Formats: sequence, C-alpha cells, structure tokens
Amino acid sequence: MTITITAFERSPDGGKGLARDTRVRWALEEVGQAYEVRLVSFRGMKEPAHLALHPFGQIPTYEKGDLALFETGSIVLHIAERHAGLLPDDANARARAITWMFAALNTVEPPILELATATLLEGDKPWSRERLPLVEDRIRNRLKQLSAHLGSADWLDGGFSAGDLMMVSVLLRLKSSGILNEYPNLAAYVTRGEARPAYKRAFDAQLAVYIGKPPSG
Amino acid sequence: MTITITAFERSPDGGKGLARDTRVRWALEEVGQAYEVRLVSFRGMKEPAHLALHPFGQIPTYEKGDLALFETGSIVLHIAERHAGLLPDDANARARAITWMFAALNTVEPPILELATATLLEGDKPWSRERLPLVEDRIRNRLKQLSAHLGSADWLDGGFSAGDLMMVSVLLRLKSSGILNEYPNLAAYVTRGEARPAYKRAFDAQLAVYIGKPPSG
Repeated sequence: MTITITAFERSPDGGKGLARDTRVRWALEEVGQAYEVRLVSFRGMKEPAHLALHPFGQIPTYEKGDLALFETGSIVLHIAERHAGLLPDDANARARAITWMFAALNTVEPPILELATATLLEGDKPWSRERLPLVEDRIRNRLKQLSAHLGSADWLDGGFSAGDLMMVSVLLRLKSSGILNEYPNLAAYVTRGEARPAYKRAFDAQLAVYIGKPPSG
Repeated sequence: MTITITAFERSPDGGKGLARDTRVRWALEEVGQAYEVRLVSFRGMKEPAHLALHPFGQIPTYEKGDLALFETGSIVLHIAERHAGLLPDDANARARAITWMFAALNTVEPPILELATATLLEGDKPWSRERLPLVEDRIRNRLKQLSAHLGSADWLDGGFSAGDLMMVSVLLRLKSSGILNEYPNLAAYVTRGEARPAYKRAFDAQLAVYIGKPPSG
C-alpha cells in the first residue's frame, strides 16, 4: 500500500526544512519506507476535502490504505511503531523514547512557538522589542534543563530514537535566532541529527519541491 | 508492582484539578489501576533526586518497578496501551485516538498555554491589556476548528478515548476565561468529560491533598 503525505505547495520558509512534513519525511527515511507527496495550497488547506483529513487545516497528513492520520507526533509514532529503526526493542527504553517525543512537542516546542508568534504575528506591535527578551528567556529555561540532561551524550536516551528525531526537529526552529548556540552541546546535538543520511534525504526532498528540481544524491 | 505518581505538595490552582497529575489520575481511574502519590514541593522539584526523574523539574512522574516516565502525554499513552478502557481495539481507530492526544497537546494546548503566560507572567506588563485579545483570538481559531469537527458527536472519534481525556483536560484550562462558552458543543463536551465517574474520582483525589481530607465517595 502506498503511503501518501501532504506538504505545502509553497512553504512559508522557502524550503529551509522547518515545515512539519520534514519530520514525517525524516521518519520515513529512517525506516526505509517510500512515500508519495501531495502538495496543498494555503487555500486548499482550508477547503472541506483537506479539513476532512486534518480538522485544523494544516500539513502534514498521512494516508495508507483506509487509514488517515494528522498531527506530526502521531504520524511519526505510528511509523516508529510499525517499522524498525526509530524505537528500541526493550519495552522500558521504548516508553522512554516516546516520552522524549512528547517532551519535544509539549514541553520544549510551546515556548519556541511563542517566539515564532512574537516575531511573525506581533513583530510590528509596539511591545515587540520589550517583550521579545522575556519570550527568549522562557526558551532558555527549557534549553538549560535539556542541556543539563543531555550532558556529553550523543542522544537523549541511549541510541538515536523517534524522541531525538522530534527534539532535533523542534530545536531546528531556533537555528536562525542564535539562542541554540548558547548551549554548545545542544547545538552539536542538532548538527548530529542533521548529519544523519535519512535527515539529509528528507531535507533534500522537501527542498526539491521549492526549487523545482529532483532531490540531490 | 505499585504505581507511584508525583503531584504538587501545594498546587498553584489550589485544587481546581488543573495540575497535570489530574490527567494521569484520570487515566488510572478509567482503567481501574490503583496508585500511590508522592507529593513534591516547588523546591524539591528542582533538586537532583527529582530532576533525575523529570529533567524539566515538573510533575507528574510515573514509576512502576524499574520504569520511570515523565510527560503527561507519554504517561497516559503508556497506561492506555497496557490496560483496556482508553484505546479502541481496532488498529486504525487506535491510531486516530492517539492522534487526538497529540492534537490536544501540540495543536490546542500551545495557544492556551500562551494565555496562561500572558495572564500569570505578563499580566502586569504595559502591553497586557492590548495584547490579550490577540492571544484569545488565536485560541478561538483552534476552538472553532475543533467545534466544527466535533459537531453533535459525544466524543472526537467514536467512543471515549485517551484522546478525549487529553482534549477535555486541555480545554478545562479555559473554564475561568469564559471563551469555552462561546462554543456550546465544546462546553458540553467538557461537561461530559467531567461527568465521568473516573474523572470525578481523580478530581476528588487531587482536591483531597489540598483540603486535607480523604476523597469523597
């Protein structure tokens, strides 16, 4: 059965890999599953056909046979549970890897989303300049704790897992802010993630949509 | 093996059930698993012993035998996967219920957390009054989509699931704001969740910590 995901017809980031389909592409590349991509316009995302797949009118979605899913976390977990390569075999280690997926999405990403909102949606407001340092400090609180946990390890809990895939993906959103570089072990962790062949293939594939040529390599 | 969770020694909400241990208590009550609670002070949460359990220094945590987990989403999923009552048997329906857990935590909760931040941490800032309506409108965007999806159904996808448990828990945070009442089907949905005997037992148990008497009933 063919796996079909959706992605932006025109990505808000112009192919920097921050759109969430990259997370799903990365997971599929890690486990060696081929997939097809259906591009959706901003207008199309708000139309009934897409809303039936994704009630919040976003990308990515995941379709395989009669199963349709949305939410990146759920899609990546679904892929990780069905194919070897993203979750450890040991039951306890597996539960901990899933814990890191949730930590990435519900503890680390929310303050990072606030920064995106503060700059993209409120960047022209009179309070923007004074407020931004507060938003950034809330991100630093989380990064400090994450950095302390990671220490000198390569990955969050043993070998690379879906938890790392999600945490690296979330931290990548901070790249342009410079905040990540205040935590050298986290910056190195993200670089380690980006260096994975599966990430590179995913990145190239999403970029190819926007530059109109096939993925390199 | 005993299940032990952690909760606030003194809850910031004084027992209104909004601390995240309520979500875990609710899940355990739905599947009929007994549990013990270890209370942690704000100071204790930042000490090495607790940080070893929860790198972000929060509650709840979950311990059973040699397994230790943090992150409410992960704990609830772990409970739901191991005991009947929170996930459907059908594989596709199961994946969709997990999708709603992630949707609650990564799509609906972030703007609601922003409102908490705006009122609790930035309520005294000069921009607070002018900014609050923007934050509230971002919540309304999500609620409107969620309300359209729910329609006249009782639960998000068939029978009550861990996805509903998490969505109702997230929406409960809006109760004091009045925003929820703008979407009557969502308000009724939350009331339906609160009416479940398992929720009531969980609520009473967390309240008993703060009023110093055993749970009612």
